[in-house]
Amino acid sequence: MTTMTTSMQALQQTLLDQICEAWLKLQQQQPLVHIMTNTVASNHVANILLAAHASPAMIDNPFEAESFAKIAAAISLNLGTPTTEQVQAMQIAAETAHQLQKPWVLDPVGYGTVLHWRSGIADQLMHFHPAILRGNASEIGALAGKQIESKGVDSTVDSADVYLQAQSLLDYCECIAISGESDYIISRDYPVIQVSGGSALQPRITAMGCALGALIAAYSAVTSPAVAALTAHVHFAIAGQLAFERAQQLGNFNVAFLDEIHQLNTETIRQYASFKILPESI
Amino acid sequence: MTTMTTSMQALQQTLLDQICEAWLKLQQQQPLVHIMTNTVASNHVANILLAAHASPAMIDNPFEAESFAKIAAAISLNLGTPTTEQVQAMQIAAETAHQLQKPWVLDPVGYGTVLHWRSGIADQLMHFHPAILRGNASEIGALAGKQIESKGVDSTVDSADVYLQAQSLLDYCECIAISGESDYIISRDYPVIQVSGGSALQPRITAMGCALGALIAAYSAVTSPAVAALTAHVHFAIAGQLAFERAQQLGNFNVAFLDEIHQLNTETIRQYASFKILPESI
Amino acid sequence: MTTMTTSMQALQQTLLDQICEAWLKLQQQQPLVHIMTNTVASNHVANILLAAHASPAMIDNPFEAESFAKIAAAISLNLGTPTTEQVQAMQIAAETAHQLQKPWVLDPVGYGTVLHWRSGIADQLMHFHPAILRGNASEIGALAGKQIESKGVDSTVDSADVYLQAQSLLDYCECIAISGESDYIISRDYPVIQVSGGSALQPRITAMGCALGALIAAYSAVTSPAVAALTAHVHFAIAGQLAFERAQQLGNFNVAFLDEIHQLNTETIRQYASFKILPESI
Repeated sequence: MTTMTTSMQALQQTLLDQICEAWLKLQQQQPLVHIMTNTVASNHVANILLAAHASPAMIDNPFEAESFAKIAAAISLNLGTPTTEQVQAMQIAAETAHQLQKPWVLDPVGYGTVLHWRSGIADQLMHFHPAILRGNASEIGALAGKQIESKGVDSTVDSADVYLQAQSLLDYCECIAISGESDYIISRDYPVIQVSGGSALQPRITAMGCALGALIAAYSAVTSPAVAALTAHVHFAIAGQLAFERAQQLGNFNVAFLDEIHQLNTETIRQYASFKILPESI
Repeated sequence: MTTMTTSMQALQQTLLDQICEAWLKLQQQQPLVHIMTNTVASNHVANILLAAHASPAMIDNPFEAESFAKIAAAISLNLGTPTTEQVQAMQIAAETAHQLQKPWVLDPVGYGTVLHWRSGIADQLMHFHPAILRGNASEIGALAGKQIESKGVDSTVDSADVYLQAQSLLDYCECIAISGESDYIISRDYPVIQVSGGSALQPRITAMGCALGALIAAYSAVTSPAVAALTAHVHFAIAGQLAFERAQQLGNFNVAFLDEIHQLNTETIRQYASFKILPESI
Repeated sequence: MTTMTTSMQALQQTLLDQICEAWLKLQQQQPLVHIMTNTVASNHVANILLAAHASPAMIDNPFEAESFAKIAAAISLNLGTPTTEQVQAMQIAAETAHQLQKPWVLDPVGYGTVLHWRSGIADQLMHFHPAILRGNASEIGALAGKQIESKGVDSTVDSADVYLQAQSLLDYCECIAISGESDYIISRDYPVIQVSGGSALQPRITAMGCALGALIAAYSAVTSPAVAALTAHVHFAIAGQLAFERAQQLGNFNVAFLDEIHQLNTETIRQYASFKILPESI
C-alpha cells in the first residue's frame, strides 16, 4: 500500500514534469494545427490557440484538406455545425492523418441523442483512429454504447459516471478525454487521471470544449496523446481558476480566461496543476 | 379617462409580474433552443443565451433539422447569411415547428431592399406562422408592404413610423417585435407596448439584434409569444443601460453587456424595466 | 538632397491631411461595405467596421452577390475559409465591381503554400482588378512570383523583404498593402510608404489582418486606394499602440483595441500616426 502510494506520487511528479515540458515545447515549436470546427467556435478556438502560442489554421474545404493535412503537425476535427463540404474535408483529413500516422483529435459534438447524421459521420471517422477522442460525458458515454439521455449538445451526464465505460473506446484511439465538472483522461499508457480546477462560469461561455479539443491537438504535436490531453486540460483548468480569481462576472471572466491561457508558465503550472491518478478499480 | 389610466396601470403591473415570472422560469427550465443564425452572430448569440441560462444549440443542416426541431423547446431562424443547405434546414424546422405548434421566431435579416433571394425565403417561412416575427423597422416595414428605402442590413427607418403598419402582419404571427431607438411589441393579446432603455452603443456592436431574436425564442419556451418578446426586449434594455453605466468604451461595453445579461434578477427588472402601453389609436 | 527631404516632408504632411480627411468622411458617410470573409473573422470584422463607423454587411451567397455589390460603396473579399457557394458569390461580386469601377479589396489568405484551390481562385479574381490587394508578406510574395516557404496562413516572411518584388503586382491593382512587423503601402501614386506602430500582441489575436482588409475597403469608399490603405493601416497601428498602453494582457488588449478603433479622432491621428516615405531605390 505504501509502495503503491509512493509509485503513484512518482507518476504524478513525472506527469507534472511532462506537462511543463509539453508547454515549453509548444512555445518553442508553435506547431501548425489544421482545424475544422463549427461556426460558433471558430473565432474563440483560433484565439485560444494563438494565446497558447500554437499556429491554428482553419482549412475546411475538401479541395485543400489533403494537402494541408500533410503539412500540419496535428489535426482537430469538431462536428458542431457540419456541412456537406466540411464533412467531405473531414473524411479526407482524417484518412490522410491516419495514413501518415499524424496525431488528430475527434470532438463528436452532439453525438448520440437525435443527431443521427453527425453520429454516423463520427462512427466513420473513428475508423481512422484519432489519437485522442474528446467530448463531454453524454457524447463519450453514447459512443461507448451506454444509452444516455442528453439535452442538446451540452452534457447532462456526470463525467464520473462515464469514464469506466469509456475504456472500451481505447480499441479505436489512444486516449479519451472527458470534460465535465471533473475531467478524466483515459489511455493505455496510464491509469485514469482526474483533472480538477477551472471555474463554474466556464460552461456558461460557448465553445470552451471546442477550444479545449483544438488545444489538445496542438499539444499532441509535441508530446504523446495522453500527455497532450492532460496538458491541455490542466492548461484550461488553471486558466479558468485564475481568471475567476480576477473576474467573477461572465463577460469579464471570458476576457480574463484568454489572458490566463496566454500567460501560463511552468511556475504557474507547478503551483496550480490539480490532478490525481485514480486507483485501477473502484 | 381615469378608469382607462387605472386599467393601463393594472396591465403594466401585470406585465411586469409576467416578465419576472418568465425570467424565473428560464433560469429554472433552461430550455433547449434550436438556433440557425448567421456566421457573424453565432458566437455572440450562443454566449448571450448561455448568459441568460438558456441552452442554445446551433443545428443548421437539413439532415438533422427535423429531429432536432422535435426535441427543442423553441426555434430561432435568422436569415443573415443563408446558404442553400441552411435554408433547406430552416424550411424543415419551420414546418416541423408549425406541425407541432412549437413556438419559433423568424428574424428576416435584410428583408426587402435588393436581397430578393432571402426575402422570398422569408415569405415562404411566414406560411409556417412564426410565433414571433422580429426585426428592425426597415425589415418589418418592408414585410408589411410599405416601400422603404434601406441601406444594407441595418435599419435606416424610425421604428415609430412602422409599428402601425406592422399590425397587418398579425395574420401570419402572434407577435411582432420591432427593435430600434425605441422597441415596439405588437400582438393580438395586448395594445402596442413600447420598450425603452438600452444604450446608444448597442447598434455599434454587431449581432445584437440577432441575439435578441434568439433570446425571444428562449423566452417563448416558457411564456406566451407577446410576453416572451417583451421580456427579451426588457432584458436587453436593462443590460444595455447597466452596461453603459459601467463602461462607456465600445469594447468594454460589449464585455459588460454580457455581464449584465447574466446577472439580471427580478429586483433589477422591477427597478429598471421601462415600458409603456400605447393608446389604441393615436 | 535638401530639396528631396523637403518634398518628402511636404508629401508626408499632405498624406497626414488626407488620412484625417478620409477618417472624417468615413464618420460622415458611414459607407455600406459588402463583405465576404471567413467564419473565424466575421464577427470581429463586423465589430471593427461598426466601431470605425462604417456599415458592414456580410452577403456571401451567389444569389444576392450581384445586386448587393451594385448598391455597396465598396467590397471586401477574403479567402480565409472559402466554400463553393461563397466562391461563386465572390466571382460575381468582383466582376460586378470591375464593371461598375467600384473599389474592392482582395485578401488572398493562405495564397501560395499548398493551398492550390484558393490560390487559383485568387488568380482568377485578380483579373477583375482589385483596387487594393492586401495580405501578409508570404501571401503577397507568393503572388508576386517569389518562391517563399510559408507555414499555414500566418506569415513567416519579413514584410521588408517583399515590398520591392510586390511592385510588379501594380499591373493588376492600384495599391498593394503588406502587413507585418512594419506595413508597406505600394501604389502608382506615391513612393513606398512604411507604417509603424501597433503592438506585438496584435498577431496573437485572430482575424486582425482580415479586419484590416475590410477597413481598407471601407476607406476606399471615401478616398483613393492608396490613401484608403494608408488610413486603415494608420488607424490599426494607433489603435494597437494605444490599446497596449492600457492593456498588456491578451484578452484585455483585444477589448481595448475595439475601444481605440472606435475612439480615434483627428487629434489622435496627428499625434500618433507613424509612417515614412521610403526612397525610390535602396
